[in-house]
Amino acid sequence: MNYRKSMMPNKNGELVIGGVKVSELREKYGTPLYVMDVEFIKSVCCAFKDTIAKYYGGFGGVAFASKAFSCKAIYAIMKSLDMNIDVVSAGEIYTALSSGFDISKAYFHGNNKLVSELEYAVNNNIGVVVIDNIEEIEILNDICSKKGIVQKVNIRTNPGVEAHTHSYIQTAKIDSKFGFSIENGDAMTAILCILKCKNLTLNGVNCHIGSQIFDSNAFRLAVDVMTDFILEIKNTTGIEIGELNMGGGFGVHYTESDPKYSLEDYCNYIKIITMAINDAVESKKIAKPRLMVEPGRSIVGESGITLYSVGNIRDIKGIKKYVCIDGGMFDNIRPALYQAEYEAVIATNCNAKAEETVSIAGKCCESGDIIIDKIDLPVAKRGDLIAVFTTGAYGYSMASNYNRNAIPPVVMVENGKSDYAVKPQSFEDIARNDNIPDFLK
Amino acid sequence: MNYRKSMMPNKNGELVIGGVKVSELREKYGTPLYVMDVEFIKSVCCAFKDTIAKYYGGFGGVAFASKAFSCKAIYAIMKSLDMNIDVVSAGEIYTALSSGFDISKAYFHGNNKLVSELEYAVNNNIGVVVIDNIEEIEILNDICSKKGIVQKVNIRTNPGVEAHTHSYIQTAKIDSKFGFSIENGDAMTAILCILKCKNLTLNGVNCHIGSQIFDSNAFRLAVDVMTDFILEIKNTTGIEIGELNMGGGFGVHYTESDPKYSLEDYCNYIKIITMAINDAVESKKIAKPRLMVEPGRSIVGESGITLYSVGNIRDIKGIKKYVCIDGGMFDNIRPALYQAEYEAVIATNCNAKAEETVSIAGKCCESGDIIIDKIDLPVAKRGDLIAVFTTGAYGYSMASNYNRNAIPPVVMVENGKSDYAVKPQSFEDIARNDNIPDFLK
Repeated sequence: MNYRKSMMPNKNGELVIGGVKVSELREKYGTPLYVMDVEFIKSVCCAFKDTIAKYYGGFGGVAFASKAFSCKAIYAIMKSLDMNIDVVSAGEIYTALSSGFDISKAYFHGNNKLVSELEYAVNNNIGVVVIDNIEEIEILNDICSKKGIVQKVNIRTNPGVEAHTHSYIQTAKIDSKFGFSIENGDAMTAILCILKCKNLTLNGVNCHIGSQIFDSNAFRLAVDVMTDFILEIKNTTGIEIGELNMGGGFGVHYTESDPKYSLEDYCNYIKIITMAINDAVESKKIAKPRLMVEPGRSIVGESGITLYSVGNIRDIKGIKKYVCIDGGMFDNIRPALYQAEYEAVIATNCNAKAEETVSIAGKCCESGDIIIDKIDLPVAKRGDLIAVFTTGAYGYSMASNYNRNAIPPVVMVENGKSDYAVKPQSFEDIARNDNIPDFLK
Repeated sequence: MNYRKSMMPNKNGELVIGGVKVSELREKYGTPLYVMDVEFIKSVCCAFKDTIAKYYGGFGGVAFASKAFSCKAIYAIMKSLDMNIDVVSAGEIYTALSSGFDISKAYFHGNNKLVSELEYAVNNNIGVVVIDNIEEIEILNDICSKKGIVQKVNIRTNPGVEAHTHSYIQTAKIDSKFGFSIENGDAMTAILCILKCKNLTLNGVNCHIGSQIFDSNAFRLAVDVMTDFILEIKNTTGIEIGELNMGGGFGVHYTESDPKYSLEDYCNYIKIITMAINDAVESKKIAKPRLMVEPGRSIVGESGITLYSVGNIRDIKGIKKYVCIDGGMFDNIRPALYQAEYEAVIATNCNAKAEETVSIAGKCCESGDIIIDKIDLPVAKRGDLIAVFTTGAYGYSMASNYNRNAIPPVVMVENGKSDYAVKPQSFEDIARNDNIPDFLK
């Protein structure tokens, strides 16, 4: 467990998050419950920004990749910290706008932004559209032309660096539904195409090399490729690229097999990126670009836990023991979808000694609904409160009503206070849009 | 493609489903759109019931496993056909009740039914609770005792037959979060436990041997094990079991690698089950049990298609061509979750010759959001209408708001008529329960 000041067991062994005991959270809000530690979220955002201030003269910014966790409250936090955000749909733009977030600070990503989404974004003064496809250039230029504006755009490139956790490769074979390959010339073609558009202005270049990355050499290599490309653009067009957006992908701690990072370690990713850019600027004689990074998981992932109550225990002698919880794949699809692994504790007694190996099983009517396949726990009994860690990213955001289970509420905690970020979903909510066609009656 | 009278291309090559052209559906309802062929649903239900009538004297019933597709309209159809249903949560019970379905015809399944769900079910006169766990027996008996009723229960057993598509195995090692192993004695223990409960009455025994099964020998073997168990119960307790519930798992046609079944082939599963039971009844000298089956996917799976519009095309020369659609893993998680395969056509020109191999990519900001990895299609262009087949089961029911995309509406079609079964979700719907805590303001 990656305990910290704002999330650790108290002297009685009960988990306290944001100054609130988990037993109090259960009493007030019930289970299953997503809980998010606001202090952690803020501290990561601030540390990332401080790193850019310290090592890069503050010439840049941090955009929260909100696909990891999108709701009004998170955008309110980002607004209060003067953060940028990434959005990937009209729905995320709508949510950000509804929270009062100024979307001129937003980057709009997506491999297939709908025309209606581009119109919605432009009409609401989106900051930067990250061009992901050659057709998108003309479509966006037309929209902006009709509106009589000049829209800032970046282009999403593929630098040919693929990074995953502890390894990375450099490859010319870019098979991705995202972005333009630098290697095969598609990226330069896109740049030239954008430069011909009267209603688009080239703001910068983007890359995104992977997810859950722990080897910062991958970022160093990506900076090298991207600054080569910036130099190529300069040599080809005479234009100095103003912004280099290095994307996200910073790894977080899910289980013991992942590093336990302090905030300082976290910032190391950005520090290494800034140092690599500074070196490249000098050696390649390009203008120093503004640096953007786009972390999502690293900002909200470890901020979140999910609280569940234990229900049935199924002990199949000599085979396996299942501890069944009141949530499951409807609130966390990642174990089924990515074979993602998690840590968990009996949250009112975190320090109790593990006595047996069990499976934590969800309540969905599906064999694959197992949240943790193998975990060492004290003997759990009906009613025990289980906390699963690092569920703040891609938990709520991917939740479904599978089996017509209600999506659990999200509660934010800070300095001993708690309140809903997302209120409980009722059965009426789930069936709100249901309709019985007349011809069936 | 598994075309049929109620879903096939017209003479112009345009797909017509339920008597409605797909271009009309797009014009009226937009895309992405789930479309469900009511005639197909009804025909499968009726054929299954007819098979039980023909080969088993009508002594039994068919319960639609509604986790495959749950909304008010489907329960209205099931009501009109005098079908039984399976439910797996209070949310499904609520939805069935809201549609006017009499849930005394419902079977309540689940490895971890919450106490609140059992109370809700009992208070609404649920038909049969399928006991899945030893703890559940006492909990349910207490609830029924307080209410002063006697509740019908089945028990979910594990017969040690595991069936998957074209193979099956018999195994004593039952590692499942569901049911009681017959082999290790757990099932008999549960029976004896139920018989001691004054407020429970033993209605029958259940099994469920797998999903997407094409080898009916697996069902024959399961009948053999289950009737042995029924005999064992008789010999041990003197009780003749009144109902044998053989579950579902009947395979459907997703791609060319799956058989193309006619309705008659479909019913073959049930025919084989009835014949096996009839044989066992005679040879084992047990009372003929009422037969229940619980198909879900086979009733709604092939009834459904999803319509998408083509947006960006990404042609990475020499590597891959992506055809991007306006839906994706938020409306169909099965390709990402189970590596499920699908067939698709350009729906206004179904008969056009395939000219290239492409990937159909969703719009989610995630590399894994690919609906069909490799498919031979005519050259697709922006605006083309794509139909993906066999999306009626576990499409809408597992849909999410990932990336804050709206869940597509569901339209039912029959005899040239169309109407919403689930109306479009608005951005307001998605953010309806969002709340900004005061302490963030």
